[in-house]
Amino acid sequence: MSIDRFMGRLTEQVNGMGTRVAAKQETKTALLEVGMDMMMEKGYTNTGIQEILSSLSVPKGSFYHYFDSKENYAVEIIQHFDQQYSATLMRTLRNPQQTPLQRLRTYCEAGKEKLAAQDCRKGCLIGNLSQEMADQSEVLRQELSKVMRKWRDMFAACIDEGQKAGEISKKWSADQYAELFASSWGGAVMRSKTVKNTEPLDIFIDMMFNDVLKA
Amino acid sequence: MSIDRFMGRLTEQVNGMGTRVAAKQETKTALLEVGMDMMMEKGYTNTGIQEILSSLSVPKGSFYHYFDSKENYAVEIIQHFDQQYSATLMRTLRNPQQTPLQRLRTYCEAGKEKLAAQDCRKGCLIGNLSQEMADQSEVLRQELSKVMRKWRDMFAACIDEGQKAGEISKKWSADQYAELFASSWGGAVMRSKTVKNTEPLDIFIDMMFNDVLKA
Repeated sequence: MSIDRFMGRLTEQVNGMGTRVAAKQETKTALLEVGMDMMMEKGYTNTGIQEILSSLSVPKGSFYHYFDSKENYAVEIIQHFDQQYSATLMRTLRNPQQTPLQRLRTYCEAGKEKLAAQDCRKGCLIGNLSQEMADQSEVLRQELSKVMRKWRDMFAACIDEGQKAGEISKKWSADQYAELFASSWGGAVMRSKTVKNTEPLDIFIDMMFNDVLKA
Repeated sequence: MSIDRFMGRLTEQVNGMGTRVAAKQETKTALLEVGMDMMMEKGYTNTGIQEILSSLSVPKGSFYHYFDSKENYAVEIIQHFDQQYSATLMRTLRNPQQTPLQRLRTYCEAGKEKLAAQDCRKGCLIGNLSQEMADQSEVLRQELSKVMRKWRDMFAACIDEGQKAGEISKKWSADQYAELFASSWGGAVMRSKTVKNTEPLDIFIDMMFNDVLKA
């Protein structure tokens, strides 16, 4: 075999491997995306792996090629959701075009619009899985707890910036405001899902930005 | 048969009927109590009817004598929980020994102590079922929504009393404060369940009673 032909074959093989690796990654990402959407609406227990595999025409045996168990699948779904959500959160909370208080409000207004657009269904994956699974799976609880803490720290950094700029009250620490903000927002989303209107979110936004956080 | 013997038999029969009716009521109440406890910890989907029946030695066939379906069982569990919870809530929120703000605080401190005593497990049946079932069952959603509204009105009545006494701020209406109070409390319970400590509740209590609600 000439060196040219050998190199040609090698390139083909390497490209083929690359394509297979890419295809595998695509299948895994598709499984995470579909599972994320279903768990957000139906919760962990009501999410059927078979239904997800059928919708993607992935054979059942392959599932365990990608994930060890349903619990491990949910852990990766939480991480996948967190990656996407944290990127949006960072973009919103570090937007130099707005003041820190405006950024927090933009985050809430966007969340409200999204919930309204989906008829107050689904809500937040992290909140939903927390209520359902915190007492059922220590593995999921720890993963959810980590995400909650991370987001709270992102809110706190923005609030701290607002306090330094004299725009947000200094009566409480940035961490305390961030904790109350996260609790109230999570609770308001839950209530909106239940009453199927955005009144709890409207009241939260009005009071939080025109009173509680204001310097 | 002498009239005495006849009356004696009749009395026996009537007492027997009464005993049977009482026994039936006891079985139903026991089913509601055990189901309430299990749904509070495991949620709706993870609650197994067979497990409940076995724990009470009630035959499977009898379940449908008391309830039409699992959904209808959950509706009655919600109503049973609401009856007990509303009675405690009313006692706490109308306690003439305390001012309205003190009563609200007593409610929160008692809730925090209860959660801590059960290692931050379970939380609130209404909040848990809302997250899990609001998108899954319109029947349950309506029942949960009704209870949420009722409790909010009870908080609002207490806040209104505090506003009239000059103890609670009048910046917002009693209904608005009650909605924010209920959202924040519900969210803080959810977060405490997930992080498995009472920090979210401590921060809520501190900020709500020393700042947000204060006149």
